[in-house]
Amino acid sequence: MNSKFLRVEGGVLAAKGYQAAGGTCGIKESGLPDVGILYAPEGALCFGTFTKNLLCAPPVTHSKSILDHSKFLRGVVVNSGNANACTGNEGLKNAIAMTDQIEGLTEQAEGSFLVCSTGKIGDQLPMDLIQKGIKEQHADLNSERAFGKDFSHSILTTDTDIKEIALEINLSVGTFSIGGCSKGAGMIHPDMATMLAFVTTDIQLGDAFREEYQEIINETFNSITVDGDTSTNDTALFFSNGASGLNYNTLPLGDQSLVREAIAYVFTYLAKAIVKDGEGATKFVEIKVTGANTKAEARKLGRFVANSKLVKTALFGGDPNWGRIVSAAATSGVNINPNVLSLSFSDIKVFENQQPLEVSLEDLNNLFVKEEIYVILDIGVGNAEASVWTCDLSYEYVKINAEYHT
Amino acid sequence: MNSKFLRVEGGVLAAKGYQAAGGTCGIKESGLPDVGILYAPEGALCFGTFTKNLLCAPPVTHSKSILDHSKFLRGVVVNSGNANACTGNEGLKNAIAMTDQIEGLTEQAEGSFLVCSTGKIGDQLPMDLIQKGIKEQHADLNSERAFGKDFSHSILTTDTDIKEIALEINLSVGTFSIGGCSKGAGMIHPDMATMLAFVTTDIQLGDAFREEYQEIINETFNSITVDGDTSTNDTALFFSNGASGLNYNTLPLGDQSLVREAIAYVFTYLAKAIVKDGEGATKFVEIKVTGANTKAEARKLGRFVANSKLVKTALFGGDPNWGRIVSAAATSGVNINPNVLSLSFSDIKVFENQQPLEVSLEDLNNLFVKEEIYVILDIGVGNAEASVWTCDLSYEYVKINAEYHT
Repeated sequence: MNSKFLRVEGGVLAAKGYQAAGGTCGIKESGLPDVGILYAPEGALCFGTFTKNLLCAPPVTHSKSILDHSKFLRGVVVNSGNANACTGNEGLKNAIAMTDQIEGLTEQAEGSFLVCSTGKIGDQLPMDLIQKGIKEQHADLNSERAFGKDFSHSILTTDTDIKEIALEINLSVGTFSIGGCSKGAGMIHPDMATMLAFVTTDIQLGDAFREEYQEIINETFNSITVDGDTSTNDTALFFSNGASGLNYNTLPLGDQSLVREAIAYVFTYLAKAIVKDGEGATKFVEIKVTGANTKAEARKLGRFVANSKLVKTALFGGDPNWGRIVSAAATSGVNINPNVLSLSFSDIKVFENQQPLEVSLEDLNNLFVKEEIYVILDIGVGNAEASVWTCDLSYEYVKINAEYHT
Repeated sequence: MNSKFLRVEGGVLAAKGYQAAGGTCGIKESGLPDVGILYAPEGALCFGTFTKNLLCAPPVTHSKSILDHSKFLRGVVVNSGNANACTGNEGLKNAIAMTDQIEGLTEQAEGSFLVCSTGKIGDQLPMDLIQKGIKEQHADLNSERAFGKDFSHSILTTDTDIKEIALEINLSVGTFSIGGCSKGAGMIHPDMATMLAFVTTDIQLGDAFREEYQEIINETFNSITVDGDTSTNDTALFFSNGASGLNYNTLPLGDQSLVREAIAYVFTYLAKAIVKDGEGATKFVEIKVTGANTKAEARKLGRFVANSKLVKTALFGGDPNWGRIVSAAATSGVNINPNVLSLSFSDIKVFENQQPLEVSLEDLNNLFVKEEIYVILDIGVGNAEASVWTCDLSYEYVKINAEYHT
């Protein structure tokens, strides 16, 4: 980590000018937290990224429509335990009722809150519980860093723990903070893996930062895959409110670079945390694709290899199986040069010129017993590169996903 | 089955004018058969379909190049136990040496034989064993139907049994036969799943039949998926020699229709047999996609759903999990109408209008304990339809593919 970055507590409350709360309203039978609010009383610019699943859930439909009207928002209300997905018109009415309620309680204008839901799909939300929960959490809104964890807890489904991070960054002209939380690829009951992420910062970003933000999303949340299935509810929201007094656009270039680095660090942490906590995951795997024509093609090929069941089971078995990896790389639909294609595990090159190389099996096996595995594929057609993060495919994955009856 | 079709023995030798042999030359440590020859002494028109994997194996490269020069061939030589894949220039020389040898033994011209290999990838072929084997099998070539099984055995890797079928078809103007064998999605050692299929008929087809043949391939071998991984060696070859005295082009229309039906029947059988014998498979699943803009899009969506790990594990668990299926269908990249999309299991519709329907869980569970499961997805944008066949994802799949060390 950059020496100008200080790791701090607080998650979404590390940055100034935000309030949050999270607690239990009873959606989950377990009694675990299932409703949360993130609030920016003075408003914040919001960048939103949503699932591309054509059956996107009503809260996604509603939130996208709000962001289409205005990027200057007051926050988001979240529930876990029920995804409000595949719930038709009634589901959309309920999503709208959730934002209506929090807008009323905070006395903010219509269209100033977004809504996210995650959990079981196909059931209507228990609106009596949710409305009681939103009322209670509104009463509990707090800006103290210590309360950030409550919100981080409230968004979880079958995650094994909260995923949160926050940084204080010392620029040449002042200090700002950025922090957030995510929830990951656990199936709820186990119907659907949903990724949610919420990040706040008290530096002011402008609309012009959208392009850089999209690149950061591409290199983090769009670069992870647990099982290749895209949920109906995936959402990442990034709020910036300027409460630190700093404005990105007027910073010296060196400071701007630090800001981008800090944002990328936080998103990277939150994205990797999802993969590491993937269902049944025993290994974290980075697949770096170099020599591609474009970053997008490098990422596409990396995701294709990452989703190969043969590759994932070999990784679970701790097997440096180059054959499955190069074969998957050659069928992704991305242009490669098979004569140049090479494959390395960490710094050991194992395949080149259409043939395996002679390498020490002991050295290879030593790499593969580690919890983190690095795969480097050079596809020999260009200069672009990208990395994809994934996990292995274990018995536990099959168990979690097979031993449930609707 | 059509009443004009008579199921007979013989596999690739059911049709007149072919000879075959298969036996052991010692590539496999198990001593199981690993070399075979299929021979059409008077020659036959050959349609070939090959893997689209860009790292295709030297035997595929060599065979494609032969077929580019001439479609009128004398046969194919096959070995199992070693895929001659990822073997570079030496691999290509070995593939050529195999066809050279059988062309010499049969006194046929250069470029009249194809070659297929399946098995472990990355090792050079043991050419001394193979050349001895080809010589022995050439000496054993036989046209008696009873010897068809020898060839069917010689192409297997980890398949649990041979996959072969043959039909005699009574047309209004005479009788012809068609038969063949396939080998499937077992990993060898377990490096790679390769599909091979060899079909022979003694009716004469012409070059004009190529389009119909491609459609049959699309609806059979291009419609199956075990794990979504495409091998370096996949090959399907279809020979027609006219030894029955019948020519497709001069048949009455009704007979032509019967011929197409018979060919489709044989290819369907051989393709389904591969899925049913998929690694760790406990269930055969047909995914029928209706209401698509084109057959190709219907097939693409069907394959995408068939390859979803969440869908496959639910099928293994015997769980009628509509949520995973409709969600996968909505992320395949194929155009769908989410408002119209419906999902049925056999004749029980479970999802429509973005919402689940109320159905008897008992009726559903009764469907899901069966060995064959029928999924019907209507995507509401057009009139095209296609079916994809797949199997479930079991503990055994993970076990087979993880518990091996290179």
